[in-house]
Amino acid sequence: MFNRMALIGVGLIGGSLARAVRRGNLVDSICAYVATDATARRALELGVVDEVAASPADAARGADLVVLATPMLTMPPLLEAVQEGVGEDCIITDVGSVKQSLIDDAAVRCPGLMRQFVPGHPIAGTENSGVDASFAELFDGKNVVLTPTAETDPSYTARVADLWRAIGSRVLTMTAGQHDAIFARTSHLPHLVAYSLVDFMAQEENASELFSMAAAGFYDFTRIASSDPVMWRDICLTNREALLDALSGYRDALERLEDSVREANGESIESVFESARAARNQGLARKQQEG
Amino acid sequence: MFNRMALIGVGLIGGSLARAVRRGNLVDSICAYVATDATARRALELGVVDEVAASPADAARGADLVVLATPMLTMPPLLEAVQEGVGEDCIITDVGSVKQSLIDDAAVRCPGLMRQFVPGHPIAGTENSGVDASFAELFDGKNVVLTPTAETDPSYTARVADLWRAIGSRVLTMTAGQHDAIFARTSHLPHLVAYSLVDFMAQEENASELFSMAAAGFYDFTRIASSDPVMWRDICLTNREALLDALSGYRDALERLEDSVREANGESIESVFESARAARNQGLARKQQEG
Repeated sequence: MFNRMALIGVGLIGGSLARAVRRGNLVDSICAYVATDATARRALELGVVDEVAASPADAARGADLVVLATPMLTMPPLLEAVQEGVGEDCIITDVGSVKQSLIDDAAVRCPGLMRQFVPGHPIAGTENSGVDASFAELFDGKNVVLTPTAETDPSYTARVADLWRAIGSRVLTMTAGQHDAIFARTSHLPHLVAYSLVDFMAQEENASELFSMAAAGFYDFTRIASSDPVMWRDICLTNREALLDALSGYRDALERLEDSVREANGESIESVFESARAARNQGLARKQQEG
Repeated sequence: MFNRMALIGVGLIGGSLARAVRRGNLVDSICAYVATDATARRALELGVVDEVAASPADAARGADLVVLATPMLTMPPLLEAVQEGVGEDCIITDVGSVKQSLIDDAAVRCPGLMRQFVPGHPIAGTENSGVDASFAELFDGKNVVLTPTAETDPSYTARVADLWRAIGSRVLTMTAGQHDAIFARTSHLPHLVAYSLVDFMAQEENASELFSMAAAGFYDFTRIASSDPVMWRDICLTNREALLDALSGYRDALERLEDSVREANGESIESVFESARAARNQGLARKQQEG
């Protein structure tokens, strides 16, 4: 499907993508650029990539597909660095969790690449990070959202979509703005909620007692608070406005519930719990039907 | 270990306790009182209990152990109703998630029973409810907190502790106030946070799109928002003050994080994420060592 894939960043997502395209024989070779030597060595050791280049441009040279798979804030400078080695027919895509700010930055830094750039986001992950946590099945049956811009060549979007489908994912297309608003709510907000819940408990005087008394359910609930801090810091910074909007809506909901507790309004508490349970169960049932 | 156990309420927790004591041959027979006929029939059908009594007092008659396993607000009237059938040597315990308010209510309604009453709380559960969701292994390796009062006969506390240990649980003893403050934070607060997150999303105009785009991680995160609304309403109402205290601390943590996002303060965001991750991972590692 592709001859040579340049993979910029080989962490959980990049490493899993490399494993998945290898599993499906979808590319002939993978050349990676990784900022830290230890990760580069590990990616080679694990056989996740074929070679490691000394610079992003070197990795991109001769590639017909470049994939950016690093924390959001490093993507614009890496895209600029890649530019020098990128051929005219090379497709560039990414796996970042935020789309509009990357597109805006790319348009300023690399206007000449916009025709070739297919912004993307696989809706998959775990709380673990790094190439050692990567696995080929991560994207099986998962959604991948592509947010092509007005300048993106539609045939390039189609080829990126084909690659994800060949891996076993479902491909959806929407605008970057739609994407960022949706995932601010369904993904970025829950991470902030989990991080701040754990932060609250860690600040309590009897923190170690609290963490030791907490049931398995608490650790399940806060699993996402073990996610990579730099990746999630970057998501907060690059999807700031949509996230603040989601946070404000969530705080309203939390305060409504807090008011009901303060007023000992059992009817109102029960009705929130009842409708939340119904909404979640319905959403889950629909997803399982689709899946 | 006991001759006849009277089980008041046969839902997830009561049903699982019945299955666990049967598995271990710890009681000779179990007589249940259940408010709804359908549940009573189902508990008999599943062989979870031996007989069903027409009233709480009838269930308690001849029992040497009475266990209350119903939503918190129904416990005080049920305890009062049980009183008529309870013998002098019968031990009474419960499995409720909140301890102080039950003790206070019991002291007013049934002062004569306080010597026999061993308040308890197994730290175990799932998001499912009802006798069909019950299973014998629910308490294996889990903590059970007992909060005996100044009036509780210590030999009765010891016998209840022995029963839980025989089931495979670890028994801890603390005051009701300590218990309620801890579980307001580690259990009740997370449930409120999860319910209000789902409530927020369900109120959005594009709710069905949000629930369909949400990743598996979101459904894991909000699993506890599928818990029984009446049980959790009662927990909110009976542990109101400790819960409001926890909520206020959590809101502060959330607002601190929100401020950092608003100010695009990457350093502060990352440091919260980093320390939350460390606290959770440490707590989890310690728990796994203990377990």
